[in-house]
Amino acid sequence: MKVAKFGGSSLASSEQLKKVINIIKADSGRRFIVVSAPGKRYSEDIKVTDLLVELYQKRLADENTDAVIQAIFERYQEIGTAFDINEETLKQIRKDLESLVDMPVENNPHFYDTVLASGEDNNAKLIAGILRAEGLAARYVNPKELGMIVSDEPQNARILTKSYTAIYQWRNSEEILVIPGFFGYTEHGDVCTFSRGGSDVSGAIVAAGLKVDLYENFTDVDGIFAAHPGYIHQPESITQLTYREMRELAYAGFSVFHEEALMPSYRAKIPVVIKNTNNPAHPGTLITNERSDLDNPVVGIASDEGFSMIYISKYLMNREVGFTLRVLQIFKEFGLNYEHMPSGIDDISIILRANQLNSQLEEELLRKIAYEIDPDELRITHDLSMVVVVGEGMKHRVGTMAESAAALARKKISIDMINQGSSEVSIMFGIHKDREQDAIRTLYYTFFE
Amino acid sequence: MKVAKFGGSSLASSEQLKKVINIIKADSGRRFIVVSAPGKRYSEDIKVTDLLVELYQKRLADENTDAVIQAIFERYQEIGTAFDINEETLKQIRKDLESLVDMPVENNPHFYDTVLASGEDNNAKLIAGILRAEGLAARYVNPKELGMIVSDEPQNARILTKSYTAIYQWRNSEEILVIPGFFGYTEHGDVCTFSRGGSDVSGAIVAAGLKVDLYENFTDVDGIFAAHPGYIHQPESITQLTYREMRELAYAGFSVFHEEALMPSYRAKIPVVIKNTNNPAHPGTLITNERSDLDNPVVGIASDEGFSMIYISKYLMNREVGFTLRVLQIFKEFGLNYEHMPSGIDDISIILRANQLNSQLEEELLRKIAYEIDPDELRITHDLSMVVVVGEGMKHRVGTMAESAAALARKKISIDMINQGSSEVSIMFGIHKDREQDAIRTLYYTFFE
Repeated sequence: MKVAKFGGSSLASSEQLKKVINIIKADSGRRFIVVSAPGKRYSEDIKVTDLLVELYQKRLADENTDAVIQAIFERYQEIGTAFDINEETLKQIRKDLESLVDMPVENNPHFYDTVLASGEDNNAKLIAGILRAEGLAARYVNPKELGMIVSDEPQNARILTKSYTAIYQWRNSEEILVIPGFFGYTEHGDVCTFSRGGSDVSGAIVAAGLKVDLYENFTDVDGIFAAHPGYIHQPESITQLTYREMRELAYAGFSVFHEEALMPSYRAKIPVVIKNTNNPAHPGTLITNERSDLDNPVVGIASDEGFSMIYISKYLMNREVGFTLRVLQIFKEFGLNYEHMPSGIDDISIILRANQLNSQLEEELLRKIAYEIDPDELRITHDLSMVVVVGEGMKHRVGTMAESAAALARKKISIDMINQGSSEVSIMFGIHKDREQDAIRTLYYTFFE
Repeated sequence: MKVAKFGGSSLASSEQLKKVINIIKADSGRRFIVVSAPGKRYSEDIKVTDLLVELYQKRLADENTDAVIQAIFERYQEIGTAFDINEETLKQIRKDLESLVDMPVENNPHFYDTVLASGEDNNAKLIAGILRAEGLAARYVNPKELGMIVSDEPQNARILTKSYTAIYQWRNSEEILVIPGFFGYTEHGDVCTFSRGGSDVSGAIVAAGLKVDLYENFTDVDGIFAAHPGYIHQPESITQLTYREMRELAYAGFSVFHEEALMPSYRAKIPVVIKNTNNPAHPGTLITNERSDLDNPVVGIASDEGFSMIYISKYLMNREVGFTLRVLQIFKEFGLNYEHMPSGIDDISIILRANQLNSQLEEELLRKIAYEIDPDELRITHDLSMVVVVGEGMKHRVGTMAESAAALARKKISIDMINQGSSEVSIMFGIHKDREQDAIRTLYYTFFE
């Protein structure tokens, strides 16, 4: 039994829908379909969600909304009329869009969420109709009916645990269920959307609730690459990786999913596969809790720029109890998040994302550290990039560090910091951003091809 | 101008004293002599300080102290009578020893310090007398007269800043000054001793106060070895190293000095040389604030066992603000000092000295972390050794990490953690203690010989 989630580009046109129908028909296990709103058909196109933002803004400004409602409707209409669907479905969608404008705007914290969520909601209705027209026993299920109850935090909803039990009741549904992604209902019956990447979250929640065997996430790429295609020409795609490996890669620039999107499937230990709607024969990338094929110690190499490093050195610092705690409390006072803090005997380096700093804040921070810690040496380094070599296989093989460091040394790339904890899922190198591309390339060619 | 400090083994017998006299005579710059109490003459010997502890205990128990006073006196007498010293000096020493027994014991927090300090104090009187007998213009200076004023913390005195100004007034002394190490006087005139390694501290304070060119620390070794002689047969001795390098080496088992001993000379930027009283022709090891000769990137390799590592992993931990702070506060509540904390994206490893733990404390700590942090994975690893490759030269050369990691990989030594901050003075590897000796050897032969 599988949950299949289709992203906006997979649902942008009737041509795309035909691929989706074939995918659903190809595997009778695909019985729970989670859908996004229709995305872009071509690069200059406007996706339905953005049209809905426009509708919201026009309504707020008390401007005429007829044209934008018509534009949104035409997207559904264009897709729907390519199939032999019941006319009633399109009428319902039109009615729903018009009813949005009649909603109260003042003192209605759920108005924005309700407008935006309609993109997915109407698409689910449309696609259920299309599947029926194609001879499949399918039905639309509203998240409220499904039991997807969320916290009352507009644009930032969190799933409530009891939802999983409610969703599980749908497990033996005879029909294929088409569920709109991106939102749920509060206990008071109001619409609240998840934060960005919301349809991925919905898919993961439905998969976890139903305890399916696999969560298929259909996108427009063949899977996750072992390195950024901007740096490596046609990099290998990853066959299988663990959630941990994915997180490590995602940290440094691999943004296949929004960070929290897969949490529900991770917790429920449900594997996720990233597949390409446009190339469904490709196996894609399978994400699992554990991984047994560890032939190549490294699955991927990622990097991200925009880090700064504050270096604090004090003779005999090591003997001062609570030293690090004091340093970190200063960072907390300044509202700064630190990412890592490798340490020597009498020194510590605190690495943080540079976008949190500005010259005034930086000056105040350094002054505070100087005053409270009285260090022998205090300096800040900017323009650092983090290069992360990721792979569960490392822990079973001595020598990945040696190969990585040797590759960087051959290219004369200075290492400003190294961080490897006992997870042994990743090794992190801090280097100057000017050498980031060189580093990615030399590490990629060390472990791949 | 130099301060020369002589340790207990350099002053244990008249034979040793003859070497010391030759050393002082050989360089007219050696005008400030700091002395320990007479040490052991052979391995089963009892050093004067330990005899003084016995005297203290006997006095406390109201037992007869005649025999131990006689034993102590004979040590000074044996040395003194080998030279043509003024008889009055030995009489004074005897009188001083006897006067100790007459001091009040009850409600006298300085009694222990006063008894122990007499070992150095009487030795300074004796050696001043010997130098005069040898034709040198020398005089004993009591720390109170010198201006060495310390905090009123018995057995743990700290120098007060104003002492440096007072000591500086002695800079133009016509005579060679012989100063007892190990203690100073409180502002109320009571004796307080420094903590362990106290004569080294005294030497460093005198050197800093007088602003001398060099602090010579005479011991019974030719200097600091590049690796532990227990692991490497006849390791190279280090010609020059920085205070930072020394600290890094000292952290992991190189205990030439007590940790705080050199703080005053470090702060005053006074170089220290470790020399061998028994082999004064050897250049010894020079310790400086900076170092220009960086031909070999590595100066030494040290290691220490007895570490444990707590591994905490939580999916999306990286997004939880203040996460590390919360973990460290738990450690603080348990009174545990951590040494290092390398981190991945969603995990952190906290490394601490295992002697702080016992099975009950460990269980409570893990339970508390589990409760407060709710991690996905939590485990503790014991029997870790830290191997530290040290050298200021690393920062000027790419590749030291690569060579180190390759050396360990060749010997199939698993690396449990790696830590290198931006100081680039050291690289730290956490490995299982069973491979510590192998690691030291392979790293030593990589960078030396």
